Formats: sequence, structure tokens, C-alpha cells
Amino acid sequence: MKIQDVARKANVGVGTVSRVLNKNGYVSDKTREKVEKAIRELQYTPNELARNLYHNKTNTIAVILPDASNPFYASLVNEIEKALRVQGYKTMLCNTVGEKTNEELYLNMLQRNMVDGILTGTHTLDNWKYAEIVGPIVSFDTPPLSETTPVVTVDHGTGGRKAAELLLESGCRHVVQFRDNVFDSFPFFERHREFEKTIREAGAICENYIMERDCFTEDFYERIVEDCFRKYPDVDGIFGTDMPAAFSLKRALMMGKRVPEDLRIVSFDGTYLINSIYPTLTCVRQPIRDIAKAGVDQLIRMIKGERPVNREIKLPVTIDIGMTTMTVR
Amino acid sequence: MKIQDVARKANVGVGTVSRVLNKNGYVSDKTREKVEKAIRELQYTPNELARNLYHNKTNTIAVILPDASNPFYASLVNEIEKALRVQGYKTMLCNTVGEKTNEELYLNMLQRNMVDGILTGTHTLDNWKYAEIVGPIVSFDTPPLSETTPVVTVDHGTGGRKAAELLLESGCRHVVQFRDNVFDSFPFFERHREFEKTIREAGAICENYIMERDCFTEDFYERIVEDCFRKYPDVDGIFGTDMPAAFSLKRALMMGKRVPEDLRIVSFDGTYLINSIYPTLTCVRQPIRDIAKAGVDQLIRMIKGERPVNREIKLPVTIDIGMTTMTVR
Repeated sequence: MKIQDVARKANVGVGTVSRVLNKNGYVSDKTREKVEKAIRELQYTPNELARNLYHNKTNTIAVILPDASNPFYASLVNEIEKALRVQGYKTMLCNTVGEKTNEELYLNMLQRNMVDGILTGTHTLDNWKYAEIVGPIVSFDTPPLSETTPVVTVDHGTGGRKAAELLLESGCRHVVQFRDNVFDSFPFFERHREFEKTIREAGAICENYIMERDCFTEDFYERIVEDCFRKYPDVDGIFGTDMPAAFSLKRALMMGKRVPEDLRIVSFDGTYLINSIYPTLTCVRQPIRDIAKAGVDQLIRMIKGERPVNREIKLPVTIDIGMTTMTVR
Repeated sequence: MKIQDVARKANVGVGTVSRVLNKNGYVSDKTREKVEKAIRELQYTPNELARNLYHNKTNTIAVILPDASNPFYASLVNEIEKALRVQGYKTMLCNTVGEKTNEELYLNMLQRNMVDGILTGTHTLDNWKYAEIVGPIVSFDTPPLSETTPVVTVDHGTGGRKAAELLLESGCRHVVQFRDNVFDSFPFFERHREFEKTIREAGAICENYIMERDCFTEDFYERIVEDCFRKYPDVDGIFGTDMPAAFSLKRALMMGKRVPEDLRIVSFDGTYLINSIYPTLTCVRQPIRDIAKAGVDQLIRMIKGERPVNREIKLPVTIDIGMTTMTVR
């Protein structure tokens, strides 16, 4: 079934059918009705590829993330898909799992008109690669990718400070934070800095356990948590994202430690993982739905040719008191 | 930058440039070199939309799932994305969250040439809607969608029987299984049937706790688990997928129950959630990576016009003995 068949049936030109389908240009009501009748009778479905080429739009957004099975990214992409769907966009899921080549390949899709925009939560490429890309990009928790690329992040500084305060108030004197080995241009670097600063200013010891980036397997978490307890057998407090926090809790209980008496734990992220665990974890929670919505809103502004609201949108974090700290608030 | 610019620069016709780009039709080596030189010098990037229209291919697969943040679906889509990427396909993520209209909308994409095929892990539509769709579709754990649609599933019957045996061997006499309210045409119906049958044949009591379908929030799991313990305060064994199993464990510990002395738990799925929890859960594990690969392989055979290997591919499950049962094997 082709557009030509519709034109023949309605006894009009192909251009007229095209104008009706694309809702642009002048078509008289009578002609429109004729065309619509022919479309109905022939059960004609327009070829979306042809429509896309005509409009030079795909209504598709690439969402680039390291690993879609990690609870944080799984929740983020889920909320992004919902927010995009409401706006009439489809979600192209792109895992990078730390491979540079994938990220470059995905960026290239924007230039080749395969997607209308990019939301990226990963950043392994040099900035100039992003600067070269002409088109709407919004990133999550990365350094500024280019002069025109907005970033959506959370108030990591406050998150780090509050986590440190929760551990200190619980009596911690020797804590570990699990952290990535990243440059200080990443927004979450602030979380690690504020955490360490707050602990040190209170006269306590802060160890930094550096994790490889973009590793998300259970084996990886088992291994680093075991290694951490071997390196620092006397720690009385732990701070990390949900996965290392949950695996630290599991390991501590396996070792016969009492939580929170012997060891206090504060996690960062607050995904559903936290709520599935007992004792419940005290956590600094990221507003995942708001992060997704803010990113989608910014991107759609850019696609429409409007200016992004801000170069950086910083959303607030909240505290959930669980059973792994001893503070009563 | 258009294909016309390349043609002018190389001093050839547009058709020649198109033949070089699409690698079909005859072009002499000398002409090909001229065209490739012009492409390089102009830094021409082909418009993928035009290419797609020409080939009538998008190299994109729609993956339709109820909720991409649920640990099982998050792991499944993650493995699907990797398996598709290796084969040169991109992943369009489509959540349905139980809305019929979404599933229909997504199916329609196949007809409108927006995707080359569909992998679906959800099924809320009547079968005739699927039967109407002309194009490659493979489903996970659904009834046969049409005469030509293959299904990838696991050996649910064995899974249910083994779970029941693990609970019986641990001394259970009164167990609950969390289950969906679905027709017996769903492959996982077999799991519930075999579980119940095995428990009853041993002279023990099996309660069926019916869950609403397509609910995945933490609040939902908290609520049903609380309700289940209220309805059946004397149960000594629980069987459910990872989320209800994990929330049952949490609730039991909060209520002061000893696990496994007072309550034994076996979960079904074996996602990373299971490994993040202490005491570790005994589980019947689905081979998520193999499920993803089998689905992708079948679909790509169909896209290439080959016949699917089988109407139903049934993969084996494995048992992981954790700390929530008392069997020593």
C-alpha cells in the first residue's frame, strides 16, 4: 500500500495526500474529506520512515547510560521513558558499559538524524567530541560537555555533608567512603569532598576506597567490600551508593558485626534496593523522577529551538533515617 | 550537506553516489574512489533517515516490557540491549506499565516501519491484535501470540516443583505462594501449579496469595506482604519472585521471626537483588542472559526471512541454596 494508491482512489495528486497526512499547506475541506475517506477505505498506514524523512524528525531520544540493570540507572531510564512518552517521544536505550567506542557511536546517531536528541548519564569521551556534535544534548551528573549543553545534577555537597553528620552523630570516629576515581569537574566529586571535609573537621578519620569506574556486577561489589573490610578492619562507619552500601551491610552481618552498634552505614541514591533490605538503610535520597523530568524538559526545549532554562539544574536531596545509624531526629 | 553536493564535487550523478553509499549496483573502482574522496573532503555524513527509507530498515528493535526498573526486567533489557548491539541493532525501550493502549501503540510501530521487529515481555492485548501484525515478533513467557510467533520461556514446572521440595525438606507444613491471577495459557502458570501440587501431595497446606498484575512499586510489595502475614499468620514457608520474597524476608525479620527457623523462603528469578541481601535467599534462578540471547537470535532469524528454530524455546532453571532454607545439599 503506497501513497500513490491513496491518491488514485481519491482522484487527487500525491502532493495533496502528502499535505493531508502532514497537516501542512492548503487543502480544501472537501478534498481533505475525500483523501481521508480513501485512507480509511484502503486502511492505509503511512510509512513512518518516509514521514520522518519529510519532517527530518524521528521523535526518538537516545538515552546513554553505563548499565541499565544497575538500580539507579534502571530507575532513571524508567522515569525518562515515562516522561518522554508523555511528550510523544520514544526512548532508544544505549548502554556503554564503559566502552568509549559505544559512546562515540551513539553520539554519531544524532548527527546522522537517527535521533532528535540525546540524554546522557555517562561520560568517558573527551569534551571536544561532544563540542563537535551539533544538536540537543542534556547530561546527568557530568562536567559541562560543551558551551551549550545543560547538566542536570543534585546537591551532592549537601548530601556528602549530611551523610558525614549522620555518621558522626552516631559516634563514628573512623569511616570509609566508597568513591570513583574522577576529576573534580564531575558534580559528584563535591559529595566526596564535603563528606571527607566534614569527617576530618570533626577530628575523625576518613578513608577513601577508590572503586573502578563503570563496574556494576555483583561479583565486583562482593570483591571490593571484602577488600575494604580487610584493608580497614576497624572502621565504624561506611558511606557509599546503594550497591556498595547494601553489600557492606551484607558482609558486615556475615562477619558477625552488629549494625548499627559496631558499624554504621549511610547510602547515597535511595533506589528500591534500599527498601527491600533489613535492617533498613539510612540514606541520602536522589529525586530520581525529578531528575528524569528536568532532563527531558530541558532537552525538549532545545529540540523546539528554545534556550535551556539553566546551564546547570541542581535538585535537592532528602534524608531517610533507617536502622543503620543511631541518630534519632 | 547533501548527496547532491557529493555528486557535484565528484562530478558524477546522484545515483552513482547512492550506489557507493548503499554498496549495491555496479560502480567502477575509479569512480568509487572519486566518490569516496569527495565524501571525505566534504566530511559528508549520510542522513540515516534517507538510508532507512531506501532500505526500508531501521535496524531498531522495540523491546516491550511492563516496567524497566523492576530488577528482572532491568536485567533482561540490559542483556537484550547487549545482544542486539552485537548484531548491529538498536534497542527501543517501551514500558507498558499495564496500559493496553501503550502495547497497541508499540505494536503499531512495526507496521509503520518504525522498527524492524519486536521483543515483548508483556501481554495485555487480545491475541488477535498480535495475529494482525505482519512482522517479526518474539515474546518472553507469554501464551503463543499468533501462529508464527515464537515464545522464549524457562522450565517453570521444574522450578515450582524444586521450590516446593526445598520448603518441604526444610520442614514446612503450611506455605504461601505469591502468584499472578493469569490464565493457564501463560507458561509460568505451570510453576504455580507444580508448586501447589507438590506441596499438597506431601500432605501440607498451600495458600495462594493472588497479586494484582503489573504492579512493581515498593509500596505495593510492602502492602501485599503485610497483608499476607495478617491473613496467614502461621505460615512456615514462602515462595515468590525476588521482590515479594525479599519484602517477605524484611517483614519477617521486622516482626521478630527467625529465618529459617520460624520461616523458610524460596525466591524465583535470581536477580542481583538476591545477592545484595542477608541472610542470602535460596532461589530458583532464571538464566536471564540466555533468555535474552535466545529471544534476540530468534528475532534476527525472522528478520532475515529464516524460520524460527522452534515455536517454544524452554530454558532450564538452576537452584541456588542460600540461608533461608534448612536443606543441606
